[in-house]
Amino acid sequence: MTDGSDTLQDIDKTDRHFLHPWQDVVSIGEDDWTVLETSSGIYVKDVEGNKLIDGPGGMWCVNVGHGRREIIDAVTKQISELSYFSPWSMAASVTTQLAERIAGIAPGDLNNVFFTTGGSTAVDSALRFVFFYNNCLGRPDKKQIIARVNGYHGSTYLSSSVSGKEREKANMDMLPNLVHFVSSPKPKDRAKGLSLEAFCDEKIAELEAKILEVGADKIGAFIAEPIMGSGGVVVPPKGYFKRCHALCKKHDILFIADEVVTSFGRLGHYFASEDVFGVVPDMITTAKGLTSGYLPMGALLISDRLMEDISQTSNEPRGFTSGFTYSGHPVSAACAMANIDIFENDNLLEHVREVAPYFADAMNSLSDLPEVTDIRVMGLMAGIECELDASTPDEDRDCAFTLKVDAICQDLGLLVRPIYNACVMSPPLTITKPEIDKMVSILRAGIVQAAKG
Amino acid sequence: MTDGSDTLQDIDKTDRHFLHPWQDVVSIGEDDWTVLETSSGIYVKDVEGNKLIDGPGGMWCVNVGHGRREIIDAVTKQISELSYFSPWSMAASVTTQLAERIAGIAPGDLNNVFFTTGGSTAVDSALRFVFFYNNCLGRPDKKQIIARVNGYHGSTYLSSSVSGKEREKANMDMLPNLVHFVSSPKPKDRAKGLSLEAFCDEKIAELEAKILEVGADKIGAFIAEPIMGSGGVVVPPKGYFKRCHALCKKHDILFIADEVVTSFGRLGHYFASEDVFGVVPDMITTAKGLTSGYLPMGALLISDRLMEDISQTSNEPRGFTSGFTYSGHPVSAACAMANIDIFENDNLLEHVREVAPYFADAMNSLSDLPEVTDIRVMGLMAGIECELDASTPDEDRDCAFTLKVDAICQDLGLLVRPIYNACVMSPPLTITKPEIDKMVSILRAGIVQAAKG
Repeated sequence: MTDGSDTLQDIDKTDRHFLHPWQDVVSIGEDDWTVLETSSGIYVKDVEGNKLIDGPGGMWCVNVGHGRREIIDAVTKQISELSYFSPWSMAASVTTQLAERIAGIAPGDLNNVFFTTGGSTAVDSALRFVFFYNNCLGRPDKKQIIARVNGYHGSTYLSSSVSGKEREKANMDMLPNLVHFVSSPKPKDRAKGLSLEAFCDEKIAELEAKILEVGADKIGAFIAEPIMGSGGVVVPPKGYFKRCHALCKKHDILFIADEVVTSFGRLGHYFASEDVFGVVPDMITTAKGLTSGYLPMGALLISDRLMEDISQTSNEPRGFTSGFTYSGHPVSAACAMANIDIFENDNLLEHVREVAPYFADAMNSLSDLPEVTDIRVMGLMAGIECELDASTPDEDRDCAFTLKVDAICQDLGLLVRPIYNACVMSPPLTITKPEIDKMVSILRAGIVQAAKG
Repeated sequence: MTDGSDTLQDIDKTDRHFLHPWQDVVSIGEDDWTVLETSSGIYVKDVEGNKLIDGPGGMWCVNVGHGRREIIDAVTKQISELSYFSPWSMAASVTTQLAERIAGIAPGDLNNVFFTTGGSTAVDSALRFVFFYNNCLGRPDKKQIIARVNGYHGSTYLSSSVSGKEREKANMDMLPNLVHFVSSPKPKDRAKGLSLEAFCDEKIAELEAKILEVGADKIGAFIAEPIMGSGGVVVPPKGYFKRCHALCKKHDILFIADEVVTSFGRLGHYFASEDVFGVVPDMITTAKGLTSGYLPMGALLISDRLMEDISQTSNEPRGFTSGFTYSGHPVSAACAMANIDIFENDNLLEHVREVAPYFADAMNSLSDLPEVTDIRVMGLMAGIECELDASTPDEDRDCAFTLKVDAICQDLGLLVRPIYNACVMSPPLTITKPEIDKMVSILRAGIVQAAKG
């Protein structure tokens, strides 16, 4: 380890040049960042030598844990053998094998893999495919998109335009007249006395009303995360996702499952859409857990049916004129292959399904704390919502509270990722029951201490 | 080496699942790809054991050559130490150091580095920053974009909307009413008898007329590649880029130099804008040579002046609500650091400046071939335009010809990347004079054989 304080000072100084995501441009170089140096398993270590549980798993992504030798070796081997090939005109067996493998674990007939550089470009590509598809089918007017308030789908112009988090729109332009939003299926928001079932009926009715209002002939696709991620880990009422899918099918609207967060084990399955929610989407977007974040990569999976629909329209070639220099990058592909090997060799999906109820119980044990007003958990993702005064909710005050919880927890050995008024947990999937206990006990202490002022 | 024919068959079969960029969706799984297996220096080797000069440098990107031990070691070290950190709330010294280093080699006051996952997301971010900037400055109407016919800027919805290559728009939607195109400054296209100077005057007059037509108060930015890359290596007339910049300055329009192709040595300098063309842009986009393609990474550089303009509008925070899971990925950053080390240790920029005249002479030596109708070359990038009948040009026929040249050259030991009717060369920058001779002699043989039918 290097001398912590010197390195820290050095980084404070030089960080004048690194404009971080979502950063206040006015304060660039003035922020006080936690500087990480090493990582291993469910832990990261900062430059001051503090060992911290990686509660957010990087950012929903270090699914197999840090420092896995299998991935390091595979990456080293591939980058030594073939550092780059152009996916426009060449192939490399590792990328080809990865595409086949993903198709093999994807639900239904989602057999066509379009590689991207991450989740944002996967969603951007999915929406562009909707335009392409309907243009090929001679339905140029059928391409408006329905998305949801508080959904998050990425950070290109198009993917951010279908994201529905209000705070992220300040001073940024979004596409007008292309996207329509329906409300978030967050059970906590339902009217007093309304049953979960009736709340779900309301959401489905709202979606159908929106379809009828805009006109199904104008709507190309509906996009949704099975569990809203950075919208605060919103677990919808039972049946919601499946009923949305059925509505889309009824109205001939493509259903895009944004599984950037929920795929690769977060909910105990490679993909959650079918195995957890009983839905075979028309397209799935994935990233994060695909490589466990070790290297950048994303993918869009497209069903055979959509391909066949296009083929049947013409004998002419139909080029999907889209793609990236780094589509199917061989080193990222090797990383993803080794990552999936770990899932298989370690029975990681089974492990998640086994510890998930324990994780849920542990999270729910926080319900006795007066500041905790909602606990949302599924698989290995949880959102612990905090409000200092539930009778007069104040978003700014409650966000400040979770930031404080995060700061205290860091002192106690846990990274929290506060999202608005929720403490979000999405640890490496390798986490054990004793480690879950440790994580939750620190989180409890953080909330208690923060509440003391 | 594995058994070539078996591997090839295997890949043909499994490639049914990998939807390549720009691929005809109707023919997925039916294409005959060249399958690469290993690489070293300026060479790649395919699964049949053929050793091929990497003429296109992957795709404008393997600048330091394949298989560099320094990069392999740096990547292995970083991925072993810290596989991922969230750039939202954390820092890592390698990314911070890279940002500082890029700011140090960038022209003028372009000191703020916003990391992305590649060129497309860098351009998407640049254009979103234009919107953000003018919204902050209270000029919400000043955000239309001027771009150029045959320019290429990427493959997100927004970056593709400012690309001006007609073929890529088939069946794909582009943003209406946001982008205005002016013509390409390709000298070959000028009217008979028109001098280069007068042609340049025409292009500048066209740009100013467009600005006045739309209204400078409505135009946020002008975006241009110093040398158009996939538009066919278009070298503009002398003074063009600088005069475009002066016009933008006069009309208070941001100037974005898309240096995804031309940065990191392609023209003999880290960035071409100032060192080659005498221009300090407001923003620069880079990717490809930044990591020599070994790992995905891109960056947007923003001037201090733009940051200060925003700071002065308000005491409130101004969050640029944009960014990626993989912004400033530590492993990609370590890759870029080692890549720049190679530039420094090998005096690679000096090498490029030294061999560039030799490369140009070698390319120009092809002018005796009757099919070669235009030779465009600068630094280590060249476009050799071929027309089978210059008096009755036929794009489809001429494109088929360059595809044939590529196929023949592959048999002779050289990868060509045909772009429309041009054979494009952008080899690793480490190429030597004897290797240039070999490359050009194969290219000559390929054109001659293809012309024989």
